[in-house]
Amino acid sequence: MSGVKVSDSMPVPETMKAWVIGDPDELIQVEKPVPMPSRAEILVRIDAVAICATDLEIIHYGTPALIEGGPPFNKNFTPGHEYMGTVAALGEGVDEFEIGDRVTVEIHAGCGQCKRCRQGMYTSCHNYGLNYGDVNKGHRANGFTTDGGFTEYAVNHINTVIKVPDTMSDEEATLVVTAGTSMYGLTELGGLVAGESVVVTGPGPIGLLAVAVAKSLGASPVILTGTRDSRLKIGLALGADHVINVKDTNVVDAVKELAGELGVDYVVECAGSEVAINDAIHMTNRGGKICLAAFPHDPAKIDLPHVVKNNMYLYGIRGEGRSATHRAMAFMADKQFDASLIHTHTFALDDLPEALRYARERVDDAIKVVVKARDAQQKLKAV
Amino acid sequence: MSGVKVSDSMPVPETMKAWVIGDPDELIQVEKPVPMPSRAEILVRIDAVAICATDLEIIHYGTPALIEGGPPFNKNFTPGHEYMGTVAALGEGVDEFEIGDRVTVEIHAGCGQCKRCRQGMYTSCHNYGLNYGDVNKGHRANGFTTDGGFTEYAVNHINTVIKVPDTMSDEEATLVVTAGTSMYGLTELGGLVAGESVVVTGPGPIGLLAVAVAKSLGASPVILTGTRDSRLKIGLALGADHVINVKDTNVVDAVKELAGELGVDYVVECAGSEVAINDAIHMTNRGGKICLAAFPHDPAKIDLPHVVKNNMYLYGIRGEGRSATHRAMAFMADKQFDASLIHTHTFALDDLPEALRYARERVDDAIKVVVKARDAQQKLKAV
Amino acid sequence: MSGVKVSDSMPVPETMKAWVIGDPDELIQVEKPVPMPSRAEILVRIDAVAICATDLEIIHYGTPALIEGGPPFNKNFTPGHEYMGTVAALGEGVDEFEIGDRVTVEIHAGCGQCKRCRQGMYTSCHNYGLNYGDVNKGHRANGFTTDGGFTEYAVNHINTVIKVPDTMSDEEATLVVTAGTSMYGLTELGGLVAGESVVVTGPGPIGLLAVAVAKSLGASPVILTGTRDSRLKIGLALGADHVINVKDTNVVDAVKELAGELGVDYVVECAGSEVAINDAIHMTNRGGKICLAAFPHDPAKIDLPHVVKNNMYLYGIRGEGRSATHRAMAFMADKQFDASLIHTHTFALDDLPEALRYARERVDDAIKVVVKARDAQQKLKAV
Amino acid sequence: MSGVKVSDSMPVPETMKAWVIGDPDELIQVEKPVPMPSRAEILVRIDAVAICATDLEIIHYGTPALIEGGPPFNKNFTPGHEYMGTVAALGEGVDEFEIGDRVTVEIHAGCGQCKRCRQGMYTSCHNYGLNYGDVNKGHRANGFTTDGGFTEYAVNHINTVIKVPDTMSDEEATLVVTAGTSMYGLTELGGLVAGESVVVTGPGPIGLLAVAVAKSLGASPVILTGTRDSRLKIGLALGADHVINVKDTNVVDAVKELAGELGVDYVVECAGSEVAINDAIHMTNRGGKICLAAFPHDPAKIDLPHVVKNNMYLYGIRGEGRSATHRAMAFMADKQFDASLIHTHTFALDDLPEALRYARERVDDAIKVVVKARDAQQKLKAV
Repeated sequence: MSGVKVSDSMPVPETMKAWVIGDPDELIQVEKPVPMPSRAEILVRIDAVAICATDLEIIHYGTPALIEGGPPFNKNFTPGHEYMGTVAALGEGVDEFEIGDRVTVEIHAGCGQCKRCRQGMYTSCHNYGLNYGDVNKGHRANGFTTDGGFTEYAVNHINTVIKVPDTMSDEEATLVVTAGTSMYGLTELGGLVAGESVVVTGPGPIGLLAVAVAKSLGASPVILTGTRDSRLKIGLALGADHVINVKDTNVVDAVKELAGELGVDYVVECAGSEVAINDAIHMTNRGGKICLAAFPHDPAKIDLPHVVKNNMYLYGIRGEGRSATHRAMAFMADKQFDASLIHTHTFALDDLPEALRYARERVDDAIKVVVKARDAQQKLKAV
Repeated sequence: MSGVKVSDSMPVPETMKAWVIGDPDELIQVEKPVPMPSRAEILVRIDAVAICATDLEIIHYGTPALIEGGPPFNKNFTPGHEYMGTVAALGEGVDEFEIGDRVTVEIHAGCGQCKRCRQGMYTSCHNYGLNYGDVNKGHRANGFTTDGGFTEYAVNHINTVIKVPDTMSDEEATLVVTAGTSMYGLTELGGLVAGESVVVTGPGPIGLLAVAVAKSLGASPVILTGTRDSRLKIGLALGADHVINVKDTNVVDAVKELAGELGVDYVVECAGSEVAINDAIHMTNRGGKICLAAFPHDPAKIDLPHVVKNNMYLYGIRGEGRSATHRAMAFMADKQFDASLIHTHTFALDDLPEALRYARERVDDAIKVVVKARDAQQKLKAV
Repeated sequence: MSGVKVSDSMPVPETMKAWVIGDPDELIQVEKPVPMPSRAEILVRIDAVAICATDLEIIHYGTPALIEGGPPFNKNFTPGHEYMGTVAALGEGVDEFEIGDRVTVEIHAGCGQCKRCRQGMYTSCHNYGLNYGDVNKGHRANGFTTDGGFTEYAVNHINTVIKVPDTMSDEEATLVVTAGTSMYGLTELGGLVAGESVVVTGPGPIGLLAVAVAKSLGASPVILTGTRDSRLKIGLALGADHVINVKDTNVVDAVKELAGELGVDYVVECAGSEVAINDAIHMTNRGGKICLAAFPHDPAKIDLPHVVKNNMYLYGIRGEGRSATHRAMAFMADKQFDASLIHTHTFALDDLPEALRYARERVDDAIKVVVKARDAQQKLKAV
Repeated sequence: MSGVKVSDSMPVPETMKAWVIGDPDELIQVEKPVPMPSRAEILVRIDAVAICATDLEIIHYGTPALIEGGPPFNKNFTPGHEYMGTVAALGEGVDEFEIGDRVTVEIHAGCGQCKRCRQGMYTSCHNYGLNYGDVNKGHRANGFTTDGGFTEYAVNHINTVIKVPDTMSDEEATLVVTAGTSMYGLTELGGLVAGESVVVTGPGPIGLLAVAVAKSLGASPVILTGTRDSRLKIGLALGADHVINVKDTNVVDAVKELAGELGVDYVVECAGSEVAINDAIHMTNRGGKICLAAFPHDPAKIDLPHVVKNNMYLYGIRGEGRSATHRAMAFMADKQFDASLIHTHTFALDDLPEALRYARERVDDAIKVVVKARDAQQKLKAV
């Protein structure tokens, strides 16, 4: 391909092993040609990829583009978006990276042309999904609308690539985009949370790293709520000042006891249930802000009267916008928190179906399950 | 009272006629002492006061402080918050105004001490309602937590007072705070709406003036939706580029036909029903913003999945913050729009109960009903 | 060229007449191939182009890229950036425009990859000028770093193209980018200037349209200062509430007399002299903001102690960023102001050198001189 | 005084020792009545007070109000603004604090009424200095316009008071307002500096703590420049990634070597010299931002052409606005950095003149000199 640079030090094979979607919930391993980067793109040799709940949804429902009116099911698509690796080839005009650089990726490369991209809101690109065929606007979302990371090589627009410091393991580097999503949520809430009270509801990966990011930004107190003590314990290790098990208590009262009777300034809602969202609303003080980083599958009965009467703002966030991944990486490179606390299991790429099962069924209390293309062994539970 | 300045040119009587709350839905006219302004306050002789839907709620349910846990019903409280008049006395230290100045008022004077007031968010004051007795933090909300305008004189903190130009009628001046509420909503949406598409849902007073304010700020197109053609017609007169009667059509489709298949950038939701809020969500494009300026009485089933998946932000706004009333006045003083198009009826202060009935029952298609303390006659329907 | 769409209704010739730079201050008319648009670009048939002071600088000094370390002088470069015209061909993937659309252009298409572009600050692209040869990052600045508008056809990235309404003349459409620059300045000052006091210093094209834009946004009062009464008179026609001839008076005192002894909230400084900048600083109130839209050729002695002691912010702005051109167009399309008041002369493209002389020497009180590729006649002075 | 609460546990004497200004550069110790707090104020028993360069200026030139046209010299005024202590009495309506609370103070309590205070910009209060006599608007600036901390007791508006955690020493607590000033500067630059490159120029107290605050916020790299290696060494201890001694090198080149040829994203300029400001401008990249936290005594020759051509913004900041002191305290309470590294000497209150000499003449390499009202001994040089 014109203008692509490769290096003898890192030969690129012609074909690779890749997992692709078959029928719903079916993943098949195939041999595919290694793709080549175009202008402003690079080829990444994938060294590790973490499994996100969204991957499970895509394998079950198809990609977002499909869900909203595309063809019945997108066969031969490779999912997976939380990957890291080594730069193996440079597309035309790329001098920001060198072959051999260790890199991790974020998901979204906006079209660069629409109103949102021109505003810097590339994760809300108005040409979302338009990257195939007649209507290629250049938008890419790794593992959502363009082939992702459950394979050996993937093409990435340079806007989605971040260098990984030597002091960071492959496994930890796969978690940067998760921390970046948490950072994006806190960014949209205003970002200046030092000394402000923050509740994080729901100790999944985004919630747990939201605790870590909020503490890194100086929030105080940071309160984590959830139903499983094992997860809350990890929250404490990531910096939470307090944890509340919602099974044992009235969580709104408990938060107000810790943070004052008016409630807290910010909530990062990562549980996604109707109850959790209403609790979030009722524990937030007048003029406070709530980030909706999760959501229920169906419309939910929400106490909007309370929202409006108390001048609250709700931010539905999707993905890792506003260069938040770079800010998350800055704290992680500086060892402000240890994101690898949420990494529980590692599998070989060939064992992806089993890795997915661990993630889906939370086998052995799995949080983040990482798949490694080479030299990986099943990792014992770490926490 | 110490330091109060009065003028012979405008003698202040010792007592005045005032409407006060009795039992729920009961208003009684009494004779009360004229209150005197303290430091940083002025006394306003009320010349005109408009009726807001919230006044009707307060007469029925009591003030917000009461609703949220105060005594059973606040007898002897004077409601009414959309008033204007003439400065009749100056409290200590006031040189921003002179006796005889025509002024209109906004509602909220924050405590100036809490976290929100220090941020400039005085309408979300954390000492809301704390202006009586042992816990006086200095917060005031005219007609909500401190005596309001259905009387002859009222004390106002100078933060709530705006001068009225000679070219503006008393009646129009009562509408500045309504326009200020619309402006506040558009401010919180970012304020830079020139050339952006805006839908306003619900052609009540705030909705109709939101059309006018959005057009003044350069929004294009501005689309007004509602159920009554008479109201939509006023929306056109206030600058709407298009109106849609939601009874006749699928409003989401109709908006997309006018503004493009992706939907609009902003919605100012002023209808407050579950259906209207979900329609607002579905007509907004990815990364768009919705101002909730109205709300249902009860929790509502909301399509939050759509909100989060499309990175939308919802702003529940209450009142007229961020000095928005001053910005609204700037456009009104400049005759950018004629707010008096929504003024339909005028009554004398003595006829307040009848005026309230017109407002409550929308008698004769009433929109804004104004009560004048002096020389008013019942006004025929204007529109 | 692959994927380019043309139409029989608007045949594109193979060559065109173009003015190109020779030696410094030398312009030569040559015959050049008509360029063809690539992906996300269009070809514009130029119908009118206005002359900007920067064009004169480029013809004299070379392009910005050159000034900062490029080759000695850029021969064969076509300057001119304030142009409008008709879409004549569509590059690959373009469906935002159709052949035959009337359009006007802004200057900057960022690379879309650097830190600033990702923030939405494409006019401050960190790959500025890198659009030729080995280091093509995709940045384009019409008439600055890529061929401009003193010719018959020009290629534009679609990010720089705005549709022109039928009700707007070709000449007025060339002024949109100037109004967009004024709008950008006011945007960076915060944008919410309704009811705020604004001084514009220097009644050149950007200053005069800054008056118009500030009034459209509701600023009040808007005060224009300058040395020539003829220009100040145009400022009044564009909406200035007051004008001050700085030759006759102490301008700082005069501003404070009009706007209050503390001074004004905002200054848009368009004069660029040391005296004017210091006057701007001294007429601004505590916490106020100054946009530096012009600048002296050399470092200037500035009263920074006053700036810091009064917590003032200075915004050096360059070009028309943050989609400001779209907001300016919204007000112009709505006939909020008549930008054509600053258009004074029209010449044929063949007479460009004479047109440049009019602009450079302000012959016949020229403000904006427009050159038309076809059917233009010398326009008599309009004002 | 009406409504003041005192406690037997902490009796308040009738008089106190206080240092007051005599003639320029003359400080006299007198016995004064202990002042009593009004509404929303508290009385602080001063336990420690740090010396700021501005104190030296006030003792030499008088207070800011004087410099700008007040009476010849303000005798009997008590300077000193970086103090902490123990709450000794509560004014009317205060329940935010209790007698016995350890607290530190920031400087500015805005009037709460002017345009800037309503925007949350209380440090730019338009009624600055209007707190005496006929024009009392309620503005207070401890040690600038109202009596300060070189004494035993001082009245403070509650807006200026922050609780001190038990784990923080008195001496460190006096440094919170300095860190708050650094935080304010970084706040005005946007606040989201994680992973961004920041240069701090000038290793005085504000500069050194700007290094610490920038690192806490995740900035990377943070580069400190200055002329004295001893200070730069402290900068390294406070987290600087690199230091540059400007005596040895071309600082602009050195910064670009460390941070990339385009220069850095942000500069916090704390040196205040013409050379340093121009260096700051030349080391900042296109679209970058510079905080001017220091300033020369006289107007300076500044490369504004470079500022404007590169779309840079300059923020002249004064004091510790936007609740930045609370954010600084959050990081200090969390032991993110050890501000006491800049505390070098301690004196008894009776020895204030000698303490001032140490600060003025930088005796023994003094940085922050702290004065303690009780049980203090001269502290040996700590660093």
